[in-house]
Amino acid sequence: MTHYSIGLDFGTESVRGILVSLTDGTEAATAVFEYPHGVISERLPLDEDVPLGRDWFLQDPADYLAGLQAVIPALLQEAGVEGSRVVGLGLDFTSCTLMPCDEAGEPLCAKPAFRADPQAWVKLWKHHGAAAEAEQILQTARRRSESFLDYYAGTISSEWLMPKVLETIHRSPRVHDAAFTYVEGADWVVWRLTGELARNACCAGYKAQHVAELGWPSADFLAELDPRMERLFEEKMPGPIVAPGTRVGGLTARWAARLGLPEGMPVAAPFIDAHAAVPACGVTTPGRMVLVLGTSFCHMLLAEEARFFEGVAGMVKDGIVPGHYGYESGQTAGGDTYAWFIENCVPARYERKAEAEGVSLHELLSRMAAELSPGESGLVALDWWNGNRSVLMDPDLSGLIVGLTLDTRPEQMYRACIEGTMFGTRRIVEAYVWAGIGVDGFVACGGLPHRNAFAMQVLADVLKRPVQVAASRETAALGSAMLGATAAGEKGGEYATLRQAAEALVKPPSRTFEPDRVSARAYDRLYAEYLLLHDQFGRRERLMHRLRQGGR
Amino acid sequence: MTHYSIGLDFGTESVRGILVSLTDGTEAATAVFEYPHGVISERLPLDEDVPLGRDWFLQDPADYLAGLQAVIPALLQEAGVEGSRVVGLGLDFTSCTLMPCDEAGEPLCAKPAFRADPQAWVKLWKHHGAAAEAEQILQTARRRSESFLDYYAGTISSEWLMPKVLETIHRSPRVHDAAFTYVEGADWVVWRLTGELARNACCAGYKAQHVAELGWPSADFLAELDPRMERLFEEKMPGPIVAPGTRVGGLTARWAARLGLPEGMPVAAPFIDAHAAVPACGVTTPGRMVLVLGTSFCHMLLAEEARFFEGVAGMVKDGIVPGHYGYESGQTAGGDTYAWFIENCVPARYERKAEAEGVSLHELLSRMAAELSPGESGLVALDWWNGNRSVLMDPDLSGLIVGLTLDTRPEQMYRACIEGTMFGTRRIVEAYVWAGIGVDGFVACGGLPHRNAFAMQVLADVLKRPVQVAASRETAALGSAMLGATAAGEKGGEYATLRQAAEALVKPPSRTFEPDRVSARAYDRLYAEYLLLHDQFGRRERLMHRLRQGGR
Repeated sequence: MTHYSIGLDFGTESVRGILVSLTDGTEAATAVFEYPHGVISERLPLDEDVPLGRDWFLQDPADYLAGLQAVIPALLQEAGVEGSRVVGLGLDFTSCTLMPCDEAGEPLCAKPAFRADPQAWVKLWKHHGAAAEAEQILQTARRRSESFLDYYAGTISSEWLMPKVLETIHRSPRVHDAAFTYVEGADWVVWRLTGELARNACCAGYKAQHVAELGWPSADFLAELDPRMERLFEEKMPGPIVAPGTRVGGLTARWAARLGLPEGMPVAAPFIDAHAAVPACGVTTPGRMVLVLGTSFCHMLLAEEARFFEGVAGMVKDGIVPGHYGYESGQTAGGDTYAWFIENCVPARYERKAEAEGVSLHELLSRMAAELSPGESGLVALDWWNGNRSVLMDPDLSGLIVGLTLDTRPEQMYRACIEGTMFGTRRIVEAYVWAGIGVDGFVACGGLPHRNAFAMQVLADVLKRPVQVAASRETAALGSAMLGATAAGEKGGEYATLRQAAEALVKPPSRTFEPDRVSARAYDRLYAEYLLLHDQFGRRERLMHRLRQGGR
Repeated sequence: MTHYSIGLDFGTESVRGILVSLTDGTEAATAVFEYPHGVISERLPLDEDVPLGRDWFLQDPADYLAGLQAVIPALLQEAGVEGSRVVGLGLDFTSCTLMPCDEAGEPLCAKPAFRADPQAWVKLWKHHGAAAEAEQILQTARRRSESFLDYYAGTISSEWLMPKVLETIHRSPRVHDAAFTYVEGADWVVWRLTGELARNACCAGYKAQHVAELGWPSADFLAELDPRMERLFEEKMPGPIVAPGTRVGGLTARWAARLGLPEGMPVAAPFIDAHAAVPACGVTTPGRMVLVLGTSFCHMLLAEEARFFEGVAGMVKDGIVPGHYGYESGQTAGGDTYAWFIENCVPARYERKAEAEGVSLHELLSRMAAELSPGESGLVALDWWNGNRSVLMDPDLSGLIVGLTLDTRPEQMYRACIEGTMFGTRRIVEAYVWAGIGVDGFVACGGLPHRNAFAMQVLADVLKRPVQVAASRETAALGSAMLGATAAGEKGGEYATLRQAAEALVKPPSRTFEPDRVSARAYDRLYAEYLLLHDQFGRRERLMHRLRQGGR
C-alpha cells in the first residue's frame, strides 16, 4: 500500500502543498492557499489606525494556520487518499520571518494588549525596518573581530534575526519584555503542530548566526549591542537546534483531527524555502550546484569542508543536508530584472505584435533575442538592478547598460539584461572554483527554467557547462515532502536519510541545456568586459553609491 | 518701397526658402520643396541596376535646380511681391556635399557615359564610402605633422572633401579623369545661377582643409596620398575663395527669366546650413555661443584669435562671419537620442495615456520627467548614442546609462538621456572657457527649443546660464537671406555687412530660459559623475570600442 508524505512551501504570498507518493515520488496532488492578509505594508489590518514605516513588511501568523487547514484536506481530497496513508510532513518557509510569542506559542500580535503594536507582528523576511540596527551590529562585530562574521562573508543583513530583534528592543521594549521567545515562522508552525519547540539548523545558521563550531553569538558581544540583547539566545531562544528532516515530534491530537491526519504522525524540522530545492533537485552530496532561478537567483552547493571566501553569502553545517556544509550565494535580481524590462522598456509596437501572434511579450522578445548572436548588439549590462549580493555584498550597487546606439533595439537590451544576470552567476561559480570547492554540474529549478528556454541556453553558454532542469515544478514543496519522508523514516519508514529519499523520489532532469561552443567562446570575451565593469563599479568606484544618494 | 532678400536652405531631404523684408526682417513668405529623388541609398534611380554600398548616400543635382524653380516663384506668389523688389539671394547647403562636373558646370552624373557610375553622382554629406581613405589621409598627415590638422582637432572625417575625392580616384579613375572640377552643392547652385565659380570660405575651410594662414594642403602631401591627388586643388578646384555674403555674381538672364527675378541681381557666396544659424541668431561678433539643437547638436562661436584646443571640431577664418574665426563643435546625437528613446523604450501604457490625453509621447514624458528633481532618480547617462564628436572626436564611443533599479521608470530614463546630452554641451563650453575663448551667453535655435521646453530648462540649469531662444524658426534660411542682403549691400543696398543686417533684421529672442539655482547646484554634482564616466570610457578605457567590434 502506497504511503505518502506532505510537503508545504510557505511563501511570501501563499502556501503551496503537495502530496508525494513515497513509492516513486509521484506528485499525487497540489494545492495553494493565498494568505488572507497577504503582505502587510501600509497599515495594520485592525481597527487601530497604525500606519507602517517605509519598506516595512509584516504578516499575520493566523494566515499560516489557515493555510494548513485549507491545503492539507484539499490535497487528500484531490488525490482521493486516506489521511491514514500519510506518514510524514515537512515544510519550508521564507526566512528570517520572525515573531515574538508567549510561552504557549501564542503570537503577541494575537493578544489585545499588543495588536496595535507593529513590533508584535510577524516581520516578513523582506521587512527593512532594521537597517540602522544591522549597521550597528556589523560595526560592533567587525570591531571585535567576531569569528562568526567569516561564515557570512563579513556582513550582517538587516533582514536577519539579530537586527530584527534589536529593532524591537529599540522601538517597543514592552514587546521585547513580553516575548517569551522569538521564533521563525517555520519553527512556529512545527511547534503548533507538535507542541515541540525546536530551531531548525537552516534558519538558525543562515539567518541567526548560529555557527556549528562556535554556537550562538556570545553574550559578551550581545551585551555590547544592548544590555537587553545579552541573554537573547540563552533566555529567549529555547529549544534544541536540529537538522532539517529530523523528527521534531508527532502531530497533536487536536491538529490530527483538524487536518484529517494520523495523531503522532512525524513532523520534520523544516528549512528555508530556497534551500528546500536542493534535495528536490536530487542533490544530497557535494558536486552539483543547485540554481534556484526565479525573481532572484540563489546558488547552493554542498561540501565536506568549511572554506571562507568571497562569494559565499552564508555557510552552515547541516543547514541543508545533514552531514554537509551548505554553501549559499545569491543574486538579488534575476527574473525581476527581465520583468522590469518588459514592464518599462518595451514599446507599444512590440505589444501589438505579441498580441497579434498570441504570445507573451517575454516570448516575443526571447524569440527575437534568440535570433541575435552573442556580442552582435555590442551591449553589456551589469545585473545589479537590486544591488549585488554575491560576490560584492553591496546593496547600493545598481544596474548599468553600455554600448547603446541609435540602432539599439529592445530585444538587444532584453538580451543584454539576461546575459548580465548569467555573467553574474558565472562570477559566483568562478569564486567557488577558485576557492577549491568543486562544482561538477548544475541543476536549475524555479520559475525561469520552465518558462524561458532562451535564458537557460544563455546560462549554459555563459557557464560553458550543461545545465540540467529539475523535473519537478514544485521543488520547494517536494523538498519539504522529502523532509517529511525522512522524519517518518526514523521510525521505520521507507527512507532513513535525505539521500535515500532523493534516490527514490527525485525524477531525472526534464531537460538539459548543452552549451553551444561558438556562443560560449563569444561569451568568454563579453564576460571579460563584464568583469571589467564589475570591478570598476563594484570595487574601485563609489559612483553608484553617490547616485543612490541623489547625486550627493 | 520695401526690398526683399531670398534665403534658401538646401537640407538633406528638401530645400526651404523664405522671403525676408529688408525693412524689418519680417518673413513675408516661406516655401518648401522635397527633392524628387531624395537621398539615394539603395540603387541609382535609372534603368541601370546599380546597387550601392552600405552607408552610401547620393543625390541627384537636378533636384536642386528643380527646387529653385519651385520655391522662388512660390515665395513671390505667396507674398504677392514683384520679383523686381528682390535685391539679393543667399543660400546655405549641407556639406561636404560634393559632385564632379565638366567645365560648363554640368554634373558628370547627368551625362549618359557616367550615369551608371555612382562615383559620378553627388556624394551627400553623410555618404560613408570613404572610411579607408579618411584613415589613410589622417595617418599620412599625422606622420608628416601637417599643420592643417591643428585646425581640425587632429582628425579627418570620412565625410570631408579629400576622402571623398580619393574614394573616387580609387573606385572610378575615369570619373576623376573626366572631372574638370569637384564642387560643393552650395557653390554649384551659385555657379548655375551666376555663371561664376567661386568657393565659399565656409565649405572650403570646414570641409576641405583650406586654412587661411596656410592655403590648401600642399601638393607634396597630396602626392604622398596618391599621385593623382597631387594637383587636386591646383587643377581641379579653380575659383577664388570668398567669405559668405560676398557677391559672387549677378543672376544670369536665363535664370532671371526662369525664376521671375531681376537679371544681374546679386547672389551671395553661401555657407553651410548649420553655420547659417549664427547671423540669424543675431550673432556677428564674439561672445555669445549659438547652439543649433536638432537631431544632433552644433555649437558655434566667433572669436578674434586662433586658438587650438581640445573640443573644437573646426576653426575657420571668415568661415561664418567675415573678419572672425568661426569655431565649431558638435554632439553627434541630441534629439536623435530622445527620438530613439521614444521609439524603443516607452511601454504601451504610456502610449495609451498619451493618446487619452491627446498629447505626444514626447510631451507626456517631458511633463512626467519635469516633475522629478535633478538626481532624484539616481541615473546618469553618457550621451554617445552616435559616438562623440566634441571633445573626444571618437565615433566608436556609445551610450551608457547607470543607476538602474527595479524602481526605475521610463520618464526617469528619458530625463537621464536629456541630461546626458546637456552635460555633453557643458563639457564643450567648459573647453572653450578653459582655453580662454570667452562665452558670454547662449542663443539656441533648431527644432528643440520650440518643441521641448523641459529639455531647454535642463540645458539652462546644467549650464547655469540663461539660454535665449532665437525668434525665427527658419534660422538657416534667414541667415541665407541675410547673406543675400549683404551681397546686395555691396552695391548700395541697405546693409553693407552681416552685422548691420543682423541689427536690422534679427528679432529679439522669443524666450529666455533662466537657470534654477537649486537645480543648477544639484546638476553640478551629477555633472561631476558624468565627467568621471566621460573620462573613464572616453579616455582610459577601450571597452566601448571592443563592444563595437562585437566583443572581440
